Amino acid sequence: MIALTGRSLIAGERAEPSSECFFGVDPAAGRPLPTRFHTASEADVDRAARAALAAQSSLRDAELRACFLTSVAERLADRATAIVEQAQLETALPPARLTGELARTTAQLRLFADVAQEGSWVDARIDPGDPHRSPLPKPDVRSLRVALGPVAVFGASNFPLAFSVAGGDTASAWAAGCPVVVKAHPAHPGTSELVGDAISIAADEVGLPGGVFSLLFDDGLEIGRALVQHPLIRAVGFTGSRGGGLALSRLAAERPVPIPVFAEMASINPVVFLPSALAESSERLAQGLFESATLGGGQFCTQPGLALVPVGDDGDDFVEQLASRFEASRQTSMLTEGIAQAYDQGCQRFDQAGARLRAEGEMTGEHATVTARLWEIELAELKPQSPLLGEVFGPTTLVARYADLRELDNLPNLLEGQLTAALFSGDPAPDPESEAAHRLWQALAQCAGRLIFGQFPTGVEVNHAMVHGGPFPATTDPRTTSVGARAVERFARLVAFQNAPPALLPTELQDDNPRQIWRQLDGEVTRDPVR
Amino acid sequence: MIALTGRSLIAGERAEPSSECFFGVDPAAGRPLPTRFHTASEADVDRAARAALAAQSSLRDAELRACFLTSVAERLADRATAIVEQAQLETALPPARLTGELARTTAQLRLFADVAQEGSWVDARIDPGDPHRSPLPKPDVRSLRVALGPVAVFGASNFPLAFSVAGGDTASAWAAGCPVVVKAHPAHPGTSELVGDAISIAADEVGLPGGVFSLLFDDGLEIGRALVQHPLIRAVGFTGSRGGGLALSRLAAERPVPIPVFAEMASINPVVFLPSALAESSERLAQGLFESATLGGGQFCTQPGLALVPVGDDGDDFVEQLASRFEASRQTSMLTEGIAQAYDQGCQRFDQAGARLRAEGEMTGEHATVTARLWEIELAELKPQSPLLGEVFGPTTLVARYADLRELDNLPNLLEGQLTAALFSGDPAPDPESEAAHRLWQALAQCAGRLIFGQFPTGVEVNHAMVHGGPFPATTDPRTTSVGARAVERFARLVAFQNAPPALLPTELQDDNPRQIWRQLDGEVTRDPVR
Repeated sequence: MIALTGRSLIAGERAEPSSECFFGVDPAAGRPLPTRFHTASEADVDRAARAALAAQSSLRDAELRACFLTSVAERLADRATAIVEQAQLETALPPARLTGELARTTAQLRLFADVAQEGSWVDARIDPGDPHRSPLPKPDVRSLRVALGPVAVFGASNFPLAFSVAGGDTASAWAAGCPVVVKAHPAHPGTSELVGDAISIAADEVGLPGGVFSLLFDDGLEIGRALVQHPLIRAVGFTGSRGGGLALSRLAAERPVPIPVFAEMASINPVVFLPSALAESSERLAQGLFESATLGGGQFCTQPGLALVPVGDDGDDFVEQLASRFEASRQTSMLTEGIAQAYDQGCQRFDQAGARLRAEGEMTGEHATVTARLWEIELAELKPQSPLLGEVFGPTTLVARYADLRELDNLPNLLEGQLTAALFSGDPAPDPESEAAHRLWQALAQCAGRLIFGQFPTGVEVNHAMVHGGPFPATTDPRTTSVGARAVERFARLVAFQNAPPALLPTELQDDNPRQIWRQLDGEVTRDPVR
Repeated sequence: MIALTGRSLIAGERAEPSSECFFGVDPAAGRPLPTRFHTASEADVDRAARAALAAQSSLRDAELRACFLTSVAERLADRATAIVEQAQLETALPPARLTGELARTTAQLRLFADVAQEGSWVDARIDPGDPHRSPLPKPDVRSLRVALGPVAVFGASNFPLAFSVAGGDTASAWAAGCPVVVKAHPAHPGTSELVGDAISIAADEVGLPGGVFSLLFDDGLEIGRALVQHPLIRAVGFTGSRGGGLALSRLAAERPVPIPVFAEMASINPVVFLPSALAESSERLAQGLFESATLGGGQFCTQPGLALVPVGDDGDDFVEQLASRFEASRQTSMLTEGIAQAYDQGCQRFDQAGARLRAEGEMTGEHATVTARLWEIELAELKPQSPLLGEVFGPTTLVARYADLRELDNLPNLLEGQLTAALFSGDPAPDPESEAAHRLWQALAQCAGRLIFGQFPTGVEVNHAMVHGGPFPATTDPRTTSVGARAVERFARLVAFQNAPPALLPTELQDDNPRQIWRQLDGEVTRDPVR
């Protein structure tokens, strides 16, 4: 094990220890871990934000940003064993999952290194001037995306690596050229420190100032609040609860200079099974839904919390198969005691709101463990804004039974915004199902960021096309994604240069296109130089 | 003249007349115009929003959207004489300006028709699947931008055509596939009605349902408020005052489902003159600044409200030349009596905050007229958040004198976010000015959306590269622009399709690329089909 210091990391240096402290917790044992973590101060926030601003110009060079991102990936891979061990202690997640998540984290960093290196994401556009245009000469106008400024990132509890210190928000902000100040999630402070150290070493290695990254510890709300309110912070990345995301958004909107909060919050990820799908492969689908719903203790943003199943024999059989799997399931250690309690409260809400408990797993009552639960109701009983249509974070799914296809047309009116919506139908779907499938697909596209055909929603591919976003409350901004190459665009603003002499133009806008990026020249997509 | 009805237009039909009314005003004469405009009701807002949602699917076809935009441009051009006459009555703007503005408005509509038709703005991305990938098969993921939903647009007082009923916000929302509900600006209701009629005719002509456009009258705040709060409205476009933009933003942020407000608000558009520029062409520059500052009564978002001028003989001579032009200027009729009063109050604020009145134009005290004013101060006297650094909407400019180049380094610390910043230097600038120019250019790029070299900020080219945006308070979202092709992106959200059968994919994501748009295939920009 690498020794932990428990001190915030500000622009490459350890913060002074403070008198306020907290400890990481082994959730499986319900025991605090030995390292004492010192709560950051408002002065630390200020130092981190100033150092970030000072470091911003050093990130202007896209090649250097790419080197840095790659170097962070390498340093994380070097320390894989220590990081996974520490994360396992702090989260009770199994090593295989954490090893996979670390691989995803380094893959994300490398994807954003590619995005920065390739360079076309800046959306460079050039409309050359014409001094002879009448009645007025036409000015030369060129524009591109530039870094927004220092970004605050909040580590997420449920992805201690891929959505945390060096996760997607951080990597995409760096790719855009923004320094990052991370507020570590108190559920995995040791993991955060190890990752933070790796980042500092990488920054040093490629010759970047320490201010490109700071890491602040706090198990309360003050430091996060101070960070969002700091005048030098220009945007916020957050993955977590609806309450947390909304609180940060409001705080950011009330600043003298409001800033965007890209919060990825709550989603129940409906999965619709059409009759023909169940007729074909009821058992395989029951197994698939069970796995997707309970994977990692159901602690995924894309966990399927609602399944639409037809009434009738095939549907009954499917629910029976599903129920038997839930019943046979063993209790799960949750990430924190708080999440376990919130899950149990959520299940009580379900119970009070009229859902019928159809099956639950084995429970021996160990610390921070919960049992998977399957609920059932008639779709016709669900009303908009029912608590049954809100997220319960954990291994539980509500099966809503529908009597005929037409009933599904009401589904989009019931649902809030979703990260995903999935549809299973036979291949090919028979009439009139095929028509209903079309209609439903169009309707679901109105309320979800990702539509999935014949697959389950958990497992988010990290690539160029992925959208991990969606209408509120799935996120605060459905125009963006927090996973995939487009995530970089969140942390950039537009700037145009009119009539600028070549020496005052950024490389990406110079006539000869030295970086060979794709640009728009008079509205035409091209890599050609300006002639 | 075409007869005006004074009734709101909801999805192609006249609203019932209401008991609450208001009248347009001839600002030059200070007299109400004859037509009685009926205030819309909350029921009208609801009807318009519902009709908009119902019409949304009809805008899915990009070719049809392009036809519609073109047809609106044609119908406006047909009615140019009547529209310009009415606008002249209501705004006191000269016919030449209004004719030019109408040409700009139709050019904007045609630009967005091209954008919709060309189609690549949807940012289609395809990462084909691989069933043989290990350990897990790779899903096929495809994504693009889709229409956000019904958009509310607030007409701006200072551009009765180009930023009003069929202005840039409306045109770009349609191009994205969003129906639009316009709240007419009460300063030009007749112009709004004429333009609204032309739009209705165009919608009819191309076979679109009336719900793609509604126009609501109100001279108070209620209808605008109801519109922003309506649950079916998905985004807001606004150009106007800082107070108005902020009020709408807050309202939108407090909704149960928050929505974005794209507000273009306040900017003083600093113009920096380096000593070498004045040495070369002091008289031409004084004339240029005077014209840019007083054009159209100074009622432009990009009006230069702050000029940085060196101390010393060249600077003195420049200010003298400028002052003589301000002194010789005649009074200007403002758009409304309210704007004229706000201008005079702004000038009082300047006076109280210590600016020295250097010159003012001739004033005979006619209705809603103001006089151009030139103010002077030492740059060293300006402090952040000084009222002298806030916008006074109208024909006035503050000259801030700097003692040496180093003093300019503090400029970005003084300024709030700006739409534009302009720099004039000799060609080539001598050392050490050249270095200072570089430094200043970089610094100004941090606070402005458009950097201009050797030209004045008024006159916003409508093209692919233009950025009419900038950090707060210039706009509420510096990641976007309200002028130029990119404006369409504001009104779209991302949606991904995973593993979707071809029949469930939008045209833009189909293998053979039937629309021949530019896409990203495995991250490579191409028009090739998927093989």
